[in-house]
Amino acid sequence: MHCAPPGWRASRVRIGLDLAASGHAALDGCALDRRRFALLDAGAARSWPGLSTLGGSHRQEVDGGASAKNFATLERVLRGLVQAGVARDAVLVGIGGGAVCDLAGLAAALCLRGIELVLVPTTLLAMVDASVGGKAAIDLPEGKNLVGAFWPASDVLIDPSFATTLPDAEYRSGMAEVLKVAIGLDAALFEFCEHDAEALLARDEAALCRAIELAVAAKIRVVERDPQERGERRLLNLGHTLGHALEARSGFTQPHGLAVAQGLHHTLGLAESLGAISARDAARCRALLIRHRLPPEPLPPAALLLEFVERDKKLLEGRLRAILPTGIGASRPAVMGAREFLGLA
Amino acid sequence: MHCAPPGWRASRVRIGLDLAASGHAALDGCALDRRRFALLDAGAARSWPGLSTLGGSHRQEVDGGASAKNFATLERVLRGLVQAGVARDAVLVGIGGGAVCDLAGLAAALCLRGIELVLVPTTLLAMVDASVGGKAAIDLPEGKNLVGAFWPASDVLIDPSFATTLPDAEYRSGMAEVLKVAIGLDAALFEFCEHDAEALLARDEAALCRAIELAVAAKIRVVERDPQERGERRLLNLGHTLGHALEARSGFTQPHGLAVAQGLHHTLGLAESLGAISARDAARCRALLIRHRLPPEPLPPAALLLEFVERDKKLLEGRLRAILPTGIGASRPAVMGAREFLGLA
Repeated sequence: MHCAPPGWRASRVRIGLDLAASGHAALDGCALDRRRFALLDAGAARSWPGLSTLGGSHRQEVDGGASAKNFATLERVLRGLVQAGVARDAVLVGIGGGAVCDLAGLAAALCLRGIELVLVPTTLLAMVDASVGGKAAIDLPEGKNLVGAFWPASDVLIDPSFATTLPDAEYRSGMAEVLKVAIGLDAALFEFCEHDAEALLARDEAALCRAIELAVAAKIRVVERDPQERGERRLLNLGHTLGHALEARSGFTQPHGLAVAQGLHHTLGLAESLGAISARDAARCRALLIRHRLPPEPLPPAALLLEFVERDKKLLEGRLRAILPTGIGASRPAVMGAREFLGLA
Repeated sequence: MHCAPPGWRASRVRIGLDLAASGHAALDGCALDRRRFALLDAGAARSWPGLSTLGGSHRQEVDGGASAKNFATLERVLRGLVQAGVARDAVLVGIGGGAVCDLAGLAAALCLRGIELVLVPTTLLAMVDASVGGKAAIDLPEGKNLVGAFWPASDVLIDPSFATTLPDAEYRSGMAEVLKVAIGLDAALFEFCEHDAEALLARDEAALCRAIELAVAAKIRVVERDPQERGERRLLNLGHTLGHALEARSGFTQPHGLAVAQGLHHTLGLAESLGAISARDAARCRALLIRHRLPPEPLPPAALLLEFVERDKKLLEGRLRAILPTGIGASRPAVMGAREFLGLA
């Protein structure tokens, strides 16, 4: 059978909405004609009570954080949708951080074999990462994001003001993903993050809006050309091979972006030692990370990280695809052994 | 984002393979170059020991039957795949009846966001229904097939000889799905089932092969034109609205096809009363069902079926899309209330 695509659609991303204040009025014109169900981050619901009106009459709350991304919670959410009378023309509105966006995405993909999804990310990390690109997944005890689907949101609604009240570690975690895009894909974003570092550190809303806009646009450009990660999309994994290993090694207590920041430092060193990036560009990348309060930290011994790196789901015949930064806003994949990647070979 | 389809591919269906006897030799040229993992129906594995060689070195067994289609089993299968070292280039080979084909399909769709799927159906029902068309799902306590995906197998390998040793009720259950296609979609199949009824009742392999071939070809024609059931594919639900309600009402102890056969009798009566089908064609359809030992049986009171019909996931704004037979090998959808459908209005 050669058939039409089963669900790949355009994501309409709108940035700068005043959701925290105006709540569901911002949803005007966005699937308001369809029956809406909300999956809401309990913490976000407490912080911004207006948010709960976004989801229409039916809503379920889950505790955010990676612990929500498991089979038991997914089953509970899906049963809740069915009990509330979900039908194929329903819209699931996921409101929260990356974990809730991921969970909502997978629930929408699976509910009655797929219903429409709208995402309202409330963390900087989710705004630039989980809400855009169509990847949704839950974790297994064996590793992160091992069970999932490609199921893009029809609409992504981004209010940068949510990011202004995040705890410090969460804000830096989100900024790490912005800088990953800057270093690996987008020289204009890189220069903006250099030039407007002070405003971004002060969480100036206009500066945040611009940084999110550039980061999301860069990600969308890549995802449009390679939605299923068969080639170019792999560049988005810059810093993630080591980042995922660090997260796993920490028992997933380390925030994702902070682990990715360490992964960025590691691959900058690796790329430099392989001659893939000039010493000058590598230094400039490091300086940008440090400027945004993401300095290198001592890593666990490489031998202890090996088993976690080898568990990477992108492993192919025992070799991994590391993404190496090659300049300002540039990167390329390089296939190598896990030991070589960790400097053990 | 306007992107390429995330997983819709051609299913290569091969009918008449000698799998029961020759086992994995029949898989030559079919994904043998990729690492294979098997999900095997425990009953089928006992009946045909050669089957277990189809799945390569790693295999998991599940008890067939609808009880396998739940979250706990899905999670166990996915964890088993990960523990066995599954990677994105792996192939999952699902071997068994409809429940195992469905479970394998959903596991393949979700494992690492999608790996290749090969299906080897071992019941007549799975050969003509679950293995072809890309629908995969598990059940919730609230209803059947409420959690799922569209994930077609790359290869479907059909050995009709498996059907010759099925228990009587399972054989008739599979034949009901063949006759559903004959009545609703394919006059040639209808005539074949009339003319060669004796051979089919005797489970003659050549006759079975022909009936499966026609039924699968008709289903593929429809699915190719409407993979996601937005229009024409709904015709495949002929007999299923009442069928699903009967299954649910029985606590899912009634075999699927036998419930569908009662659904066919019911919609024939409904279509006749609405003037959608001639009395003569309706009588010919009924005679064919009876000839294949699928006579009408007394139904539970309509009032007791109402809640189950109203739970149908194809319900749209409280109304259901019944499929009405309109002649020999012909049918059309008709939107009506659940009460009207049951003759309560």
